[in-house]
Amino acid sequence: MSSVLVPQEQDFPRWYQEVIAKAQLAENGPVRGTMVIRPWGYAIWELLQAAIDERIKATGARNAYFPLLIPEAFLHREAEHVEGFSPELAVVTHGGGKELEEPVVVRPTSETIVNSSFARWISSYRDLPMLVNQWANVVRWELRPRLFLRTSEFLWQEGHTAHATEVQAHAFALRILTEVYADAMIEELAIPIYQGRKTEREKFAGADVSWSCEGMMRDGKALQMGTSHELGQNFARAFNIQFTDRDGRQHHVWQTSWGVSTRLIGAMIMVHGDDHGLRVPPRLAPIQAVVLVARAGEGVTEAATRLVEELERAGVRVELDDNAEVSVGRRIVDHELRGVPIRLELGPRDLAAGQVVIARRARTEKETVALHHVAAEIPKMLVDDQAALLAQATARRGERTRSAQSVDEARELASDGFARLPWRVCGTEGEERLAQAGISVRCLVREDGAPVTDPDADGVDALVGRAY
Amino acid sequence: MSSVLVPQEQDFPRWYQEVIAKAQLAENGPVRGTMVIRPWGYAIWELLQAAIDERIKATGARNAYFPLLIPEAFLHREAEHVEGFSPELAVVTHGGGKELEEPVVVRPTSETIVNSSFARWISSYRDLPMLVNQWANVVRWELRPRLFLRTSEFLWQEGHTAHATEVQAHAFALRILTEVYADAMIEELAIPIYQGRKTEREKFAGADVSWSCEGMMRDGKALQMGTSHELGQNFARAFNIQFTDRDGRQHHVWQTSWGVSTRLIGAMIMVHGDDHGLRVPPRLAPIQAVVLVARAGEGVTEAATRLVEELERAGVRVELDDNAEVSVGRRIVDHELRGVPIRLELGPRDLAAGQVVIARRARTEKETVALHHVAAEIPKMLVDDQAALLAQATARRGERTRSAQSVDEARELASDGFARLPWRVCGTEGEERLAQAGISVRCLVREDGAPVTDPDADGVDALVGRAY
Repeated sequence: MSSVLVPQEQDFPRWYQEVIAKAQLAENGPVRGTMVIRPWGYAIWELLQAAIDERIKATGARNAYFPLLIPEAFLHREAEHVEGFSPELAVVTHGGGKELEEPVVVRPTSETIVNSSFARWISSYRDLPMLVNQWANVVRWELRPRLFLRTSEFLWQEGHTAHATEVQAHAFALRILTEVYADAMIEELAIPIYQGRKTEREKFAGADVSWSCEGMMRDGKALQMGTSHELGQNFARAFNIQFTDRDGRQHHVWQTSWGVSTRLIGAMIMVHGDDHGLRVPPRLAPIQAVVLVARAGEGVTEAATRLVEELERAGVRVELDDNAEVSVGRRIVDHELRGVPIRLELGPRDLAAGQVVIARRARTEKETVALHHVAAEIPKMLVDDQAALLAQATARRGERTRSAQSVDEARELASDGFARLPWRVCGTEGEERLAQAGISVRCLVREDGAPVTDPDADGVDALVGRAY
Repeated sequence: MSSVLVPQEQDFPRWYQEVIAKAQLAENGPVRGTMVIRPWGYAIWELLQAAIDERIKATGARNAYFPLLIPEAFLHREAEHVEGFSPELAVVTHGGGKELEEPVVVRPTSETIVNSSFARWISSYRDLPMLVNQWANVVRWELRPRLFLRTSEFLWQEGHTAHATEVQAHAFALRILTEVYADAMIEELAIPIYQGRKTEREKFAGADVSWSCEGMMRDGKALQMGTSHELGQNFARAFNIQFTDRDGRQHHVWQTSWGVSTRLIGAMIMVHGDDHGLRVPPRLAPIQAVVLVARAGEGVTEAATRLVEELERAGVRVELDDNAEVSVGRRIVDHELRGVPIRLELGPRDLAAGQVVIARRARTEKETVALHHVAAEIPKMLVDDQAALLAQATARRGERTRSAQSVDEARELASDGFARLPWRVCGTEGEERLAQAGISVRCLVREDGAPVTDPDADGVDALVGRAY
């Protein structure tokens, strides 16, 4: 089959743009850097959102909603925060036909406005921990926008919590990183990730410690897929959030914030997609199987319809494609572009033989299955293919993650993958040298997988790569 | 029990403010007119959202997402649209630290930006109908904000569709009004509604015909709860959305748009709430039943925990309240304020008698139920109470909806309810006279319930009331 996309090997960025357009995932909005998420892209996002939301709620956090518009003065209360976000702000100066007395900003993130509420909601140790999450849009003016990866407006969730002690805040930030983010990325997106600690240079504006999940894309580049921050008492001081403990003493709370965004869709595209199009992990596929009437004929459409009904009863998200107005070849190309995990092809000869031809996006060979086994087999195949995508991505990442013993070697290796370089060898100076070559320390990790509490301890590696 | 809220009869607007604050539904944001939706309010919204979303998807519409920021010039393409929305716009003039060359507006509604995409997505009759919905925030600068009812930012869904013919667009606008909006309002919110056609004076800026759902609040005032518009070819011409029919001829599409918002939470508060607090319809209650340990004692907490587990297994959203730090009286007041539909009170004496005391927000008398019947009885009670709330609201509305034979009589009756006045008697002049007294024609309805296609036909009544 002739390719409808530029091959990844030839031009990965162009492949990325083309697959987003041709799979009808998204397109640019009229205001620079903004994005229209089309129904297929949005349906994937809805499934991912539900999977993440369930995990967030399991931690005890509850959803709420805070205003889009924030007084500009709020951002100035935390010095590092305003310094980090000022260059990216969209500012509303006129409302209701008049110039505003005080300009308001469109939220780039909601630490300030959430904490202005927390200051009213928290007074006693009984109010803690306070665990709040919101699903919202945020605006950060982008100079080099790219669909899903960096857009001037994006959709995300942002969690904000307050705790009585630093230990509790630390534990909660890591719980989100591991039980919510890493788990959803691995189990739902089928993407293996490195969990680690951000360096001082890379941490969030206003945080004491930032943690992140980093994924490797098919071109060997890194994508920061989610972050969880320990904010210490920085915002608690700025917004005067205090609680009375059991002994009647006043303390500032310890806080965390954490977020993942529509960027995760970009990760899914770049980790799993191939030269034929997307490969959507079955758990996130709005349509998991399409039953395609390859050639109409005696009873074929009826048999295909029965298959669809059986698969629906088996819990499969399934669609019938008996569209005679478009050629079979073209329809197959479209299903592959959209990344529908399993395609069942049925024609008169298949029907006569009591079988159906099955093409799976996660595999290369087609296979045939007896019609009366389909409803039992497809759900198993979906589970297998979810695992296969994760295994393939893990193998690719493994091949491209190598150890380095010097900054120069790490720089070399980062040209098409990740380098693990002892942080003691790298250090802030090495990090600075790498930055000049467009390479960054994605995060600090330990060989034993434990979180890095002391960056300067034994066994801490810098994970070095080129980032999106 | 001494009242924790000002009685509704005494001061309904103040009751409304107090119940929102004390039930922790929402609060004002720092920028005038904005709203923080607190976890309890947001959890109700999530359930309502899911119920509406399911109905929208059943029509074949698919969710998508369009940008928040719209070039100001887009709004000017449709003359009535820009005239209607200009006074309410929030305008972003600076982005990324620079003054923008062209100002952009924060969406007040998305007809313009959606249709700029539709112009690219639609080229053939095969692309029609195009049925798209988005859940989003919009900003309309409010001079007289009131939580949930009129806020400068609110959450809503807005549907946008394109059809080949006017007849199809008309039918779809009415399908949304009836099968999605009216059905969800009646079945989920337990609010009886009038479905009708807006007068020319009241219709949406840019529409040919607007339809609405109107509810009656406990104070007899009207609330517009949802609207569905026939846009004709107005936006199709403004954005040049054309399709080629089967014979190769070009036509502009016919369109609809429709929306409901967080205002529905305001309706729920004002239709069902009483002097003790909210009464959340069971289908929308994040917690449908609370098991309250009224007095600790031998095995009481254990028995209460078992009840909670049984109720969970029976599909009830249930919470245990064994909080010994707060008095039982105070906890009961709080559960009533929040509108939890059913409270099960368990103390040592109840346990000894093998029973539990049940208090239902939809009823006045308490009752006792044998412990081993609870798991079977509570789900039935929830269904009954959902119906009871609807029946109570329907009875109240019936008492306050009266026929009028003149504009003066309608004005009188509208002081504490709705008047039905023949539209031929009212007319645009009568409507103007009513408007001077702060009264409006909420919509035009027919005695037989059929949609009003010709306002000047026999049997068309103006539904007259004071509106929020």
